[in-house]
Amino acid sequence: MRATYIQDVQQWVAGFNFSTEVQVRFSETDMYGHVNNTKVFTYFEYARIEYLKALGFQSLSESKGMNMLIVADIQCDYLKEAFFDEILTVFVKTASIGTSSMDLHYLVKNAKEEICYTGRGTLVQLSSETGKGVPILDEQKKILLGK
Amino acid sequence: MRATYIQDVQQWVAGFNFSTEVQVRFSETDMYGHVNNTKVFTYFEYARIEYLKALGFQSLSESKGMNMLIVADIQCDYLKEAFFDEILTVFVKTASIGTSSMDLHYLVKNAKEEICYTGRGTLVQLSSETGKGVPILDEQKKILLGK
Amino acid sequence: MRATYIQDVQQWVAGFNFSTEVQVRFSETDMYGHVNNTKVFTYFEYARIEYLKALGFQSLSESKGMNMLIVADIQCDYLKEAFFDEILTVFVKTASIGTSSMDLHYLVKNAKEEICYTGRGTLVQLSSETGKGVPILDEQKKILLGK
Amino acid sequence: MRATYIQDVQQWVAGFNFSTEVQVRFSETDMYGHVNNTKVFTYFEYARIEYLKALGFQSLSESKGMNMLIVADIQCDYLKEAFFDEILTVFVKTASIGTSSMDLHYLVKNAKEEICYTGRGTLVQLSSETGKGVPILDEQKKILLGK
Repeated sequence: MRATYIQDVQQWVAGFNFSTEVQVRFSETDMYGHVNNTKVFTYFEYARIEYLKALGFQSLSESKGMNMLIVADIQCDYLKEAFFDEILTVFVKTASIGTSSMDLHYLVKNAKEEICYTGRGTLVQLSSETGKGVPILDEQKKILLGK
Repeated sequence: MRATYIQDVQQWVAGFNFSTEVQVRFSETDMYGHVNNTKVFTYFEYARIEYLKALGFQSLSESKGMNMLIVADIQCDYLKEAFFDEILTVFVKTASIGTSSMDLHYLVKNAKEEICYTGRGTLVQLSSETGKGVPILDEQKKILLGK
Repeated sequence: MRATYIQDVQQWVAGFNFSTEVQVRFSETDMYGHVNNTKVFTYFEYARIEYLKALGFQSLSESKGMNMLIVADIQCDYLKEAFFDEILTVFVKTASIGTSSMDLHYLVKNAKEEICYTGRGTLVQLSSETGKGVPILDEQKKILLGK
Repeated sequence: MRATYIQDVQQWVAGFNFSTEVQVRFSETDMYGHVNNTKVFTYFEYARIEYLKALGFQSLSESKGMNMLIVADIQCDYLKEAFFDEILTVFVKTASIGTSSMDLHYLVKNAKEEICYTGRGTLVQLSSETGKGVPILDEQKKILLGK
């Protein structure tokens, strides 16, 4: 496994507690017959938002008036093709937390439990008023780290 | 030709004065190997906006503080498949103008001058303040009708 | 209600027996803050395929070696905006059947049971070998008409 | 600049010899009012293919019956937002060549010459018959390295 953000694969996979499902749509395939590489990022986006909702992160942020998270960078490794109509399970976890940012990791498995895609990316918390970074609160950290 | 919005095809085709080009992207194809039917509407959208810019409609509307056009309905007839990397020419014209709406027609040809897609749809001019329909001004009508 | 494919709205709505759900993704919104008009056609496509699977139409067609359905035309009327994260219910029904084609109708409601979008479109059954139209079988008609 | 694939920014930027343009479409924005992060990968894909065509890489590969390139991984860093209707210049270069793969880098600037996005990703050359990796030929290397 090539990804630099994964040291021990088994341990990395075991660290995910949240997942949600997506079903591959016909319009997400391309002429190679598989899921177009650009569409996997829409799965990441969907799962990331579901994850933050499930944790209560989003409602906490909104109650504090701090509900803007921006993608600073994102990447995906394509290990196995996925095809039309497959049900994919998208796992998300918080890998680390910076001052006003957090690093999320992604894992996508097919119904045979095979790893199709892995990924990671940094989100930055911005003030929607000033457009500048806002420190991650202790309460937010607790939620992200599941404490 | 099945489309109810076309009476005489030759005459209908001859009525277009504006066109712009799109190149079919790989990510716009699907597993059938051709352009996915849903993507043609992004071509219509792109060409419609270029058309309104070219006419000066958009800048006029902005100068009047009335720059919100909403798609009320849209439709497409698929006559011939288009494929990856093809350069398509998208034609747009104003077919009719209502009180606060206008009916635009679309024609998409490939490099062989074959008709791939035809379409039409109604745009409604809204006030971004009230969200209600705003009558098309005489100046706007003149622009749309090329007078 | 403007759509020419709807005579009596109540009766039209009552005629749907199948539905499936989609959740509006962030990447499906546009800068107007609502679902981009082009994305509704991906909801139609998804629901159409689920509908044909649920009826057993797809598996019957595959068993006969006739599994290629092409969109000949499609249209959508936008009655009410939908927004990020909303759960939409997409209804599909067969409105009529031609020699080698069928006309499907679409209805999309939000969680408040309000109608957001309506639509219709013709599918044509093609032979994947010859690329020509193939008559809809009696068995297929029975399935589509729920008999 | 955070990206680990960039050592010296000025030198890195100066190393690009190829570029192509994309115009931001309305349907590529999201409710934050800017280009949705997932759409930048469609710009990368488009520019990558134009790059390989411009170099003659694609026609060489086709003449050798080796025309399948698969994205093994890809990533993007978002430095500055881009907005509807902006003309973006997408630069592509070959950063390194492996046995049957190559590493491409991406740079996207707006009309003010500001860097909006940077990226990189590995492409793998596959045999469409066996689905296995095929070594990059010397002729292909020469083309990619501009020699």
